[in-house]
Amino acid sequence: MTDSLFIRACYNKPTERTPVWIMRQAGRYLPQYRAIRSGHSFTEMYKTPELATEVTLQPVDILGVDAAILFSDILVVPEAMGMELRFIEGRGPVFSEPLRNELQVMGLKEVESNEALSFVMQAIKNLRRELSGRVPLIGFCGAPWTLATYMVEGGASRHYRHIKEWRFKRPDMLEQLLSRVTDALIDYCRAQMDAGVQALQIFDSWAGLLDEDGFEHLALKYVRKLIGAIRRPGVPLIYFPRGGMLWLEKLGDLGAEVIGLDWNIAPRRARELAAGRFALQGNLDPTALYAGEEQVRRHTLKMLEGFGRGRGHIANLGHGILPDIPVENARAFVETIQSESAGFRNTEQAV
Amino acid sequence: MTDSLFIRACYNKPTERTPVWIMRQAGRYLPQYRAIRSGHSFTEMYKTPELATEVTLQPVDILGVDAAILFSDILVVPEAMGMELRFIEGRGPVFSEPLRNELQVMGLKEVESNEALSFVMQAIKNLRRELSGRVPLIGFCGAPWTLATYMVEGGASRHYRHIKEWRFKRPDMLEQLLSRVTDALIDYCRAQMDAGVQALQIFDSWAGLLDEDGFEHLALKYVRKLIGAIRRPGVPLIYFPRGGMLWLEKLGDLGAEVIGLDWNIAPRRARELAAGRFALQGNLDPTALYAGEEQVRRHTLKMLEGFGRGRGHIANLGHGILPDIPVENARAFVETIQSESAGFRNTEQAV
Repeated sequence: MTDSLFIRACYNKPTERTPVWIMRQAGRYLPQYRAIRSGHSFTEMYKTPELATEVTLQPVDILGVDAAILFSDILVVPEAMGMELRFIEGRGPVFSEPLRNELQVMGLKEVESNEALSFVMQAIKNLRRELSGRVPLIGFCGAPWTLATYMVEGGASRHYRHIKEWRFKRPDMLEQLLSRVTDALIDYCRAQMDAGVQALQIFDSWAGLLDEDGFEHLALKYVRKLIGAIRRPGVPLIYFPRGGMLWLEKLGDLGAEVIGLDWNIAPRRARELAAGRFALQGNLDPTALYAGEEQVRRHTLKMLEGFGRGRGHIANLGHGILPDIPVENARAFVETIQSESAGFRNTEQAV
Repeated sequence: MTDSLFIRACYNKPTERTPVWIMRQAGRYLPQYRAIRSGHSFTEMYKTPELATEVTLQPVDILGVDAAILFSDILVVPEAMGMELRFIEGRGPVFSEPLRNELQVMGLKEVESNEALSFVMQAIKNLRRELSGRVPLIGFCGAPWTLATYMVEGGASRHYRHIKEWRFKRPDMLEQLLSRVTDALIDYCRAQMDAGVQALQIFDSWAGLLDEDGFEHLALKYVRKLIGAIRRPGVPLIYFPRGGMLWLEKLGDLGAEVIGLDWNIAPRRARELAAGRFALQGNLDPTALYAGEEQVRRHTLKMLEGFGRGRGHIANLGHGILPDIPVENARAFVETIQSESAGFRNTEQAV
């Protein structure tokens, strides 16, 4: 797989065309996903390796994307640390007892991923067998700051009152939590690599809640520690700090091969700021796929043009695909990348 | 009032100390506000000039801020354009019939602010009399993009599906709406100035939903038109593009004297990007006021240090004050600015 389009693009190596996958590509917008989901709870889906395997493969078959990403949830780690998690229809994941004091932080369990999260490892093994080299398999985890935010808030939140109170009033307690979560993630990511993932994405979905100082000391510091502990030759790492595009310049020495971009930042500007130090992944606004197929093609070409002729771009949306996107439009996005990006590349070689 | 601290700072002129006010300073965190609010609906409050006047004055008396900002709501303009607005407890403002087609856009009324919004103008006149020169009075409006977002979504929204669909699928219809809203705002802002506001802030609360291209063509284009039409000598304009800190460099030729900052951007970086072309307002994370008074002082001093010794800074939070902030902490923020910022200024003069 090290010579796949996706892995080569992660390492900034030349590719004939731009590889493409879609965040949340195994999801509700696919009728085939909804068919399986109708018979099982979300929890059953990610805890049953056969189901997780099946839905992970769907977009590879249906859309022809250039990478598979494991169907799972970032909150399996806090769950393995002992926090009871429930998925409430229309409200998303909710922790029954959010962390609100030091005693609760002290009470979190250490994670032995191969035991507590064996269902993830089994799904990875199944997938490697089923994929048998068709496309690489991406594993993932939530970043420490993002997981801590969920664990303290308990679920979706309006002002993130509790985690922010920790940040400004009890930074010591927050740092203790971030350390514990980072340790659990180190074990979890290593186990995913042992089981066979060929790349790994770290989702920092709440980076944008922070000020610059907080981003450095509460987000990056722990991501740097995580990356330092899990790096392996041949397994590229992708860091996606959503809402953190203002801080792209700071990510050059993080150790991640790829930085995921949300749609706020213009591709051209991201290229300038990256200055070849890391590859870029993204970043079409997912709502652009609400437009008609012809318009999707146009918006996609404009994005490709923005990223320009250089190597080191993996096409994706700037956030997960939305559940009510027509499949034809997702396919138009993927097809446009696959059929048109070679032109951009050829121009590069001609120059 | 042109020699008040606040107005001088807006125009980048020297001041003995940094002026300070707080977004949403007339609000729920004040027991005196809640006392009045308990007897009246939110709608009654902003439509009754006497009530609007009373709550506008509260933070001037209680916290001693350096500017008053009219108590009102940005949605009075769509309301005057004919959209029925309801405030639902715990859910915020909701339009009964959000805009979903061209016919509805065509059906929007032109706004004669002095008639349809006379309650605002009356409150402004009352306030000028009551304030009698103590501090300047700031008027405000929502930016065209932000008002259009509310009008199309109908209320708070998760993915802003509808306005984004217009943006990518029917840009022509969106531009028509933005033009109509801009025209209404020109009339509204002029009427506020005629009635006596001494500065005016344009809130672009949903700037952060956009990509760079959208920010330029759907947000800035119309703000530029608005500013061009309403500029008057002696009445500084403040533009606050929340979530748009990535695009600060683009705002140099907008015509606004002041750019409001959210807390994402580090003050030092904002100073560099502004390069003296505009004054800056902000930007402490409002949740920092959840910490104790002593910590609030420390966080505030750190912010002052970040903005440094130059002129042209108006202290504020990076977003509205939250309803459950202890009043002592809001006072600690204001007092720290007022007692400590002179030190920073004096150093400047010494250098």
